[in-house]
Amino acid sequence: MKAVVFESKEKGATYNEDFKSPEIPDDFVEISLKAAALNKRDDFILKGLYPGLRPNVVLGSDGCGVYEGQPVVFDPGINWGESLEYQSPDYHILGMPQHGTFCEKVSVPKTNIFAKPKHLDFIQASALPLAGLTAYRALFTRGRLKPGQKVLISGGGGGVALFCIQFAIASGARVYSTTGSEDKKSRLLKMGLEGVVNYNGNSWDMDFSREFGPVDLVIDSAGGDGLHRLVNLLNPGGTLVTYGGTLGKSDNISPQVIFWKQLNIKGSTMGSPQDFKNMIRFVEQHQIVPVVDRVFPLSDFNKAVARLRSKDHFGKIVLTIS
Amino acid sequence: MKAVVFESKEKGATYNEDFKSPEIPDDFVEISLKAAALNKRDDFILKGLYPGLRPNVVLGSDGCGVYEGQPVVFDPGINWGESLEYQSPDYHILGMPQHGTFCEKVSVPKTNIFAKPKHLDFIQASALPLAGLTAYRALFTRGRLKPGQKVLISGGGGGVALFCIQFAIASGARVYSTTGSEDKKSRLLKMGLEGVVNYNGNSWDMDFSREFGPVDLVIDSAGGDGLHRLVNLLNPGGTLVTYGGTLGKSDNISPQVIFWKQLNIKGSTMGSPQDFKNMIRFVEQHQIVPVVDRVFPLSDFNKAVARLRSKDHFGKIVLTIS
Repeated sequence: MKAVVFESKEKGATYNEDFKSPEIPDDFVEISLKAAALNKRDDFILKGLYPGLRPNVVLGSDGCGVYEGQPVVFDPGINWGESLEYQSPDYHILGMPQHGTFCEKVSVPKTNIFAKPKHLDFIQASALPLAGLTAYRALFTRGRLKPGQKVLISGGGGGVALFCIQFAIASGARVYSTTGSEDKKSRLLKMGLEGVVNYNGNSWDMDFSREFGPVDLVIDSAGGDGLHRLVNLLNPGGTLVTYGGTLGKSDNISPQVIFWKQLNIKGSTMGSPQDFKNMIRFVEQHQIVPVVDRVFPLSDFNKAVARLRSKDHFGKIVLTIS
Repeated sequence: MKAVVFESKEKGATYNEDFKSPEIPDDFVEISLKAAALNKRDDFILKGLYPGLRPNVVLGSDGCGVYEGQPVVFDPGINWGESLEYQSPDYHILGMPQHGTFCEKVSVPKTNIFAKPKHLDFIQASALPLAGLTAYRALFTRGRLKPGQKVLISGGGGGVALFCIQFAIASGARVYSTTGSEDKKSRLLKMGLEGVVNYNGNSWDMDFSREFGPVDLVIDSAGGDGLHRLVNLLNPGGTLVTYGGTLGKSDNISPQVIFWKQLNIKGSTMGSPQDFKNMIRFVEQHQIVPVVDRVFPLSDFNKAVARLRSKDHFGKIVLTIS
């Protein structure tokens, strides 16, 4: 079958038209894939930044296809475990070390499968699973966002951040964002955000505070120097949820600000099967349509990765398979 | 009346035998004080490190005395506000800017008053309010400690930390601590802790991890360089509650550790009227006896402060009044 297969950190991944279909694990079923979407995770794997890398594994976590004649989406997470609060040590995501979705057929546990939301086509639905799950858990399960609250979602152009923005607006929150690009800023404002600040410049946090005041919830995936600034923007009792750390470790975190304002800093990654089920229901209820940046055929995987790395993309990058 | 009165950052506080009793505010009632206890907050005020300092204010937040012939304790917090999650901007504590407890008579709202727990004498009961309240909220309301969980309380000799230790043991948790003194270490171990590590030395966190493994909850009031080490000691889904920052801001906080382990970092300070009520009930139910370090007459206030500053104290320092 056609497949994008990880070789090594040095060689990256190659497109293979004749990859031998892997065996279907016990208790798994096979889905014929129509489309798959890229995640930052795929790029971390290509760069060798992910633990437990193995050669000859089909990449990709997100997909959409057909199972027993029905259009389906599926939770890319396997073995979350018993607790709703954290994943078990056995938890993993399709696309490393288990074969993923950048190919014609993928195997998943039957309980991971859900009917494709009817208002989405295959391309749109393939963009949903991992980013939608991550956004849903960060915003609602961990962030406990309530209607009318003010939420700041940093780095507004990213895949997860855009779902956070769409979900938060749909839930009745007042939504704000930051971005490094004036073009993205104007696109974000058209989506119904109340305010967007460009984070280039030393005093973006002051600019934000002066213009929009404090917020109840922050969702961040950058970390680094921005984290303490974001913490300072919180209202008393407010919460910051971090689901990533692309800018590395954070300094200058003030215990005084955290304890005096009774703040909460919470980590969130992926989501439980319950989060996935709730996310799909939310997307159907509010008729959310994922923002798709560009679509490439599976054979142009390398062009799709280049687009992901360019940081010019706005929304999800999708590969069509059949 | 006899009173310890704050003058200024430069002059500190003076003991005055003839201080004019302040007027009783509307809706407040007057308590005749028997004993009062020192808190770090009093020392922060003396050093000019507290906001909103005013001269001619009687210091002291904690006290125990007699109201309408009955022995009573009282919540030192005024105007907490509507939310259980955070205090209102009007919240303040007896002893600055409102007159406090280092004197013969103090005024408080009637609803702040509770019967003195019968198993405690006046000296023991005076040590309870602010430190007990802070410990109760940090451990249970914010930290959500459950029986059987492992909790690490840093800086085990301090007033709040000792209440955390006593409350946590009484609730059925497995309790660990850190201290900088071998003498305090042996005193802590006699209280029923499962393990105590000396935090002098670069690898105390590694020592702790090797000997006792990860914990479910950390309660910290130091911040600084220790915070990221304490975060690293948490189990998946674990929580760190900070109620102080004596070592200042914290660096090297890793978003990756926080999001991958789905951790929670929560701030906590003082407590709501509901927390105070629950704390008094808990102390009665479990017959908790506050650890009293030394007792001084009110006139020896300066000696009591010197003892507090020495860092040799183990438990609360109490002033007797009448």
